[in-house]
Amino acid sequence: MATLSDIGVAAAINILSAFAFFLAFAILRIQPVNDRVYFPKWYLKGLRCSPLANGAFVCKFVNLDFRSYARFLNWMPAALQMPEPELIDHAGLDSAVYLRIYLLGLKIFVPIAFLAFTIMVPVNWTNNTLEHSGLTFSDIDKLSISNIPNGSLRFWTHLVMAYAFTFWTCYVLKREYEIVASMRLHFLASEQRHPDQFTVLVKNVPPDPDESVSELVEHFFLVNHPEHYLSHQVVYNANKLSELVNEKKKIQNWLDYYQNKYERNPSKRPLLKMGFLGLWGESVDAVDFYTAKNERLSRDISLEREKITSNPKSIMAAAFVSFKTRWGAAVCAQTQQCRNPTIWLTEWAPEPRDVYWENLSIPFVFLTIRRLIVAVAFFFLTFFFVIPIAIVQSLANIESIEKALPFLKPIIEVIPKTIGASIPMKATFFITYIMVDGWAGVAAEILRLKPLIIYHLKNFFLVKTEKDREEAMDPGTIGFNTGEPQIQLYFLLGLVYAIVSPILLPFVIVFFALSYVVFRHQIINVYNQEYESAAAYWPDVHLRIIVALIVSQLLLMGLLSTKEAASSTPLLITLPVLTIWFHRFCKGRYEPAFVRNPLQEAMMKDTLERAREPNLNLKGFLQNAYIHPVFKSADGDKIDVAMEEWEEEPSLIATKRTSKRSTPLSSKHSVSSFSSPEANKERSKP
Amino acid sequence: MATLSDIGVAAAINILSAFAFFLAFAILRIQPVNDRVYFPKWYLKGLRCSPLANGAFVCKFVNLDFRSYARFLNWMPAALQMPEPELIDHAGLDSAVYLRIYLLGLKIFVPIAFLAFTIMVPVNWTNNTLEHSGLTFSDIDKLSISNIPNGSLRFWTHLVMAYAFTFWTCYVLKREYEIVASMRLHFLASEQRHPDQFTVLVKNVPPDPDESVSELVEHFFLVNHPEHYLSHQVVYNANKLSELVNEKKKIQNWLDYYQNKYERNPSKRPLLKMGFLGLWGESVDAVDFYTAKNERLSRDISLEREKITSNPKSIMAAAFVSFKTRWGAAVCAQTQQCRNPTIWLTEWAPEPRDVYWENLSIPFVFLTIRRLIVAVAFFFLTFFFVIPIAIVQSLANIESIEKALPFLKPIIEVIPKTIGASIPMKATFFITYIMVDGWAGVAAEILRLKPLIIYHLKNFFLVKTEKDREEAMDPGTIGFNTGEPQIQLYFLLGLVYAIVSPILLPFVIVFFALSYVVFRHQIINVYNQEYESAAAYWPDVHLRIIVALIVSQLLLMGLLSTKEAASSTPLLITLPVLTIWFHRFCKGRYEPAFVRNPLQEAMMKDTLERAREPNLNLKGFLQNAYIHPVFKSADGDKIDVAMEEWEEEPSLIATKRTSKRSTPLSSKHSVSSFSSPEANKERSKP
Repeated sequence: MATLSDIGVAAAINILSAFAFFLAFAILRIQPVNDRVYFPKWYLKGLRCSPLANGAFVCKFVNLDFRSYARFLNWMPAALQMPEPELIDHAGLDSAVYLRIYLLGLKIFVPIAFLAFTIMVPVNWTNNTLEHSGLTFSDIDKLSISNIPNGSLRFWTHLVMAYAFTFWTCYVLKREYEIVASMRLHFLASEQRHPDQFTVLVKNVPPDPDESVSELVEHFFLVNHPEHYLSHQVVYNANKLSELVNEKKKIQNWLDYYQNKYERNPSKRPLLKMGFLGLWGESVDAVDFYTAKNERLSRDISLEREKITSNPKSIMAAAFVSFKTRWGAAVCAQTQQCRNPTIWLTEWAPEPRDVYWENLSIPFVFLTIRRLIVAVAFFFLTFFFVIPIAIVQSLANIESIEKALPFLKPIIEVIPKTIGASIPMKATFFITYIMVDGWAGVAAEILRLKPLIIYHLKNFFLVKTEKDREEAMDPGTIGFNTGEPQIQLYFLLGLVYAIVSPILLPFVIVFFALSYVVFRHQIINVYNQEYESAAAYWPDVHLRIIVALIVSQLLLMGLLSTKEAASSTPLLITLPVLTIWFHRFCKGRYEPAFVRNPLQEAMMKDTLERAREPNLNLKGFLQNAYIHPVFKSADGDKIDVAMEEWEEEPSLIATKRTSKRSTPLSSKHSVSSFSSPEANKERSKP
Repeated sequence: MATLSDIGVAAAINILSAFAFFLAFAILRIQPVNDRVYFPKWYLKGLRCSPLANGAFVCKFVNLDFRSYARFLNWMPAALQMPEPELIDHAGLDSAVYLRIYLLGLKIFVPIAFLAFTIMVPVNWTNNTLEHSGLTFSDIDKLSISNIPNGSLRFWTHLVMAYAFTFWTCYVLKREYEIVASMRLHFLASEQRHPDQFTVLVKNVPPDPDESVSELVEHFFLVNHPEHYLSHQVVYNANKLSELVNEKKKIQNWLDYYQNKYERNPSKRPLLKMGFLGLWGESVDAVDFYTAKNERLSRDISLEREKITSNPKSIMAAAFVSFKTRWGAAVCAQTQQCRNPTIWLTEWAPEPRDVYWENLSIPFVFLTIRRLIVAVAFFFLTFFFVIPIAIVQSLANIESIEKALPFLKPIIEVIPKTIGASIPMKATFFITYIMVDGWAGVAAEILRLKPLIIYHLKNFFLVKTEKDREEAMDPGTIGFNTGEPQIQLYFLLGLVYAIVSPILLPFVIVFFALSYVVFRHQIINVYNQEYESAAAYWPDVHLRIIVALIVSQLLLMGLLSTKEAASSTPLLITLPVLTIWFHRFCKGRYEPAFVRNPLQEAMMKDTLERAREPNLNLKGFLQNAYIHPVFKSADGDKIDVAMEEWEEEPSLIATKRTSKRSTPLSSKHSVSSFSSPEANKERSKP
């Protein structure tokens, strides 16, 4: 059991290391040589240019203005200054809403902590249960629920507080959901024209013996959305090609590295050992070796590209279908197309940068089976995890230990007596955890040690031109996938311990406040936006906090029943019921804003656009939006996309099926840029 | 504990009473005087006319052909003869699919019973646990799981059987879901033109200070579905009017009764006492009294009707919106209209007969609150129901009884020892229950005792004309709402006891077989079809059987753990997980067929219809489809629906909002038949 002074020491260590990180950051940040590591976002925006370009030589690398060292924490107010609308404009809605999760933590826990410390802590403190229990305890534990005697009427306070905390949390959650939903709708409404507004992703296109995927998609949508269908883009399985392109990039880096080395020291050609890890074996000329390898890869890439475009099997059973209006796309995305609900699945297309190309062709059955496997694995993981826990628990059971190890008896008769007393005392462990992970850990985040080192290594070995330097600067993206679960752990800890041991709350609050400032700074100055989902993840954030709330209620119920306050159970069991209902209410009220697309909005934008730009070439705008990035990005050797003849659709749709052989002409409407080789082949047949 | 002979006696009694019912039915059915009670469906179809009309006088009432009495069970094969497609044509898809639930019971339980009796019963029987337990038991209990000693390896048989039964049930369920889904789609595809195919029910129309509901609906859909909107019908709150109309019908019956009485005995005017229940008090002339009352009601009805049509407050915030094509309606029903997901809610309109008019105007918030209240009530009902059960259980606990009532000790030391032995022995109670409710009860259903008596009473006192006799014949409708839960109880019993005590299964199978024959007969000959949902209820049937399956699995798990076969738990707990996954799979695969409307189907029917009937007057067809039945049914004084001027929509939509006062002209597109008085009033203002 940690005493107050133990925690004091831990706090001192962690606060000191946090300050050390901040100090190091403050010093490193204002050195011009690190400018691209700590302000890459501004470079990407084109609003900052390299400080290396002008000034005295030393000043290019080291900051000699000593006054700037004195103000080493001034980035904090600076980070808070940018108003939210500007932040959305600067870094996207995803990032701005992500920051709101930290704010949400403050909004939930500051009033809860205030209530807990003014009402619940005095109620806990003014008892002598722990003194008389024979347990080892510290003053911290006296603040917790452990200090209330079993069956005491004082548990009514905790009951009322549990209701108050639940209602407050739900109220804040509801308000936040409302705000985020309206922010999302406002953002979507004010958005510029984007390809994804007009496009629907069609999955599970059924196989057809007579028509290619491209023809099939075109015919289906011409028949079933005759007034709205515009064009489509088939999806290629370019996974292998994209591997090759990545491989080539890596080889190019090595080539640059050895070329630089050679240029600096032209007297000696750099050599390379062919054995394990380049440690032994035959030596070859490194520049020649990598040049040859690079050329071989270029050849492989163009062969693979050829293969993809000519082989119909590399066309997946999915397509991006674009419509003439946002209304048409909204309709198609929300409706069922075919009587079999597992084929012709339509959903709103993600924006082009957000497409996960590798997974586009998984059929419905495999998806279901994958879900089953994950569910079963999850279940057994949880279930069998219970077995070791149960063994440990049964060992930890006092009587069992006494039986197994009788010589421990004198010690045991003193170690904890009741679960109700010992659980809240685990709080000290979590307090230490929060200080390490949530305080020092967050402070370390701002230092960006790994990108700093990698940037300088690249700068030294690879960079030749200003363009190379730009590529060496890797701002990274904000880690939603790791950051969000971390926040959720803190929500869970805060909600569980709010009633049980409120002393934990100030530590959680410091975490939320510190993280908010740090991540706001990082989002403004560092991270690059990878894609924009317009805060589509918020329903998940909401759901997880609700789950944390329910877990906290169930734990409190169990705890109070061990404290012989079982009569509170009916009142406590109402809380999860109310919470689940609240979740269902919110789901019905706000979730549609995150998954569906109201027709009214679509129609409004369409009408406005028609009035403003009556002669818009939408087909041209959408032409190459959903091409696999590997076809686009390859520098220099971009695949030449055959410009589409620009014409009106014929009024008659060729729905009558005939064998492919007798209808060799390829579709006129198709914008799929790679169908032509295949079609040409067909055409050239006698 | 019931012995084998007890059950034998109960079976004899129930089989005898079932036969008595069948015999009574066979005799009553062939009497011409009862023809309208036992064959009303054929009268409604116009395929049978009254046997009272011709033949000798006695033959009109009593069947003297004695040969027909000998074949008193021949209705059974007759009921089975009609093939399913003809049955669907005759009584609708709802009824045909309802019968399939009974068939489903047979499909599930016949193979399960076969397996249980060939494998599990021998395993149970060849033990001596009950002989040595000191429990009172009968030979029936020797067939059950109680007869297996605790911790025996023989429980592996039950484990394997649990898997086999679950897989078989799921397999049958999946096949049935598939068949019903395809039946539904086929039925919908082959359906004639119905108003509901073109119509969408719009709920939660937001209030608007400037426009009436009718104008608002029209403008909204003209703007957001410009190419598809055809017309709409506002919904009136006619609950009070419909009460008055019902009241009038009742008074009319009494008037007819007294008039008939007077006509039969013109010497004496029938009198009526005004006091309690007509037992004492001042006497008045009954015919005059009811004539006056009838006239007063007619006046009230026309006043109320006037009030509804003139008061804008009686227009609810809901409307039936019709589209030019099925495609347009399918699109509107499946999409979200407005950014606020709680207003402008659209759903596929039920067919006109299936509309529950009273509930059409409940707003979203009230709906959510109602759901909360029901959920909380349900929860507390279940929760507090546990308390008396717990008290009874704790009393039933042997030690407690011994303590509370020490004189019972000698008896108690003998009464049951283990729960694992006593639970399966409850089977005898359910066997008796099945025989009473499921055998004799179902047999009583066919006799139609209540409709028989009421028909003859009405026939004697009220009927004057052939039309009156037709009205007196009340075929009733098949009680989905009571019948389906009854079936579900049998599914639950069958699945729970399949492993525990398979002796119950034959009784359940007899129930399903008997019910199938009886209800098939009733559906063919008696029940009238109230509305047609095209088997939309099947997902619920499926879900409930799944729940029964999961309950049975959990109970088996609990039972086996009391039988010290806890090592089976991990294997058993996999079953509910797999079952839940199976349910999710079925939901994804088949449920859309029951809630959504594939665009392809809609487009196909639209295209066919356009080709076949290019000059169809759809607006005329839909004009009065969704008028409250009280405005339609009132005999004679039908409200005259102003025929709509038949014109094309103007290309410009009046979306600019101005105050109502300055735009007094009512909408031209509205087909709402009752807006005219209101509009006229507005017009007459200066």
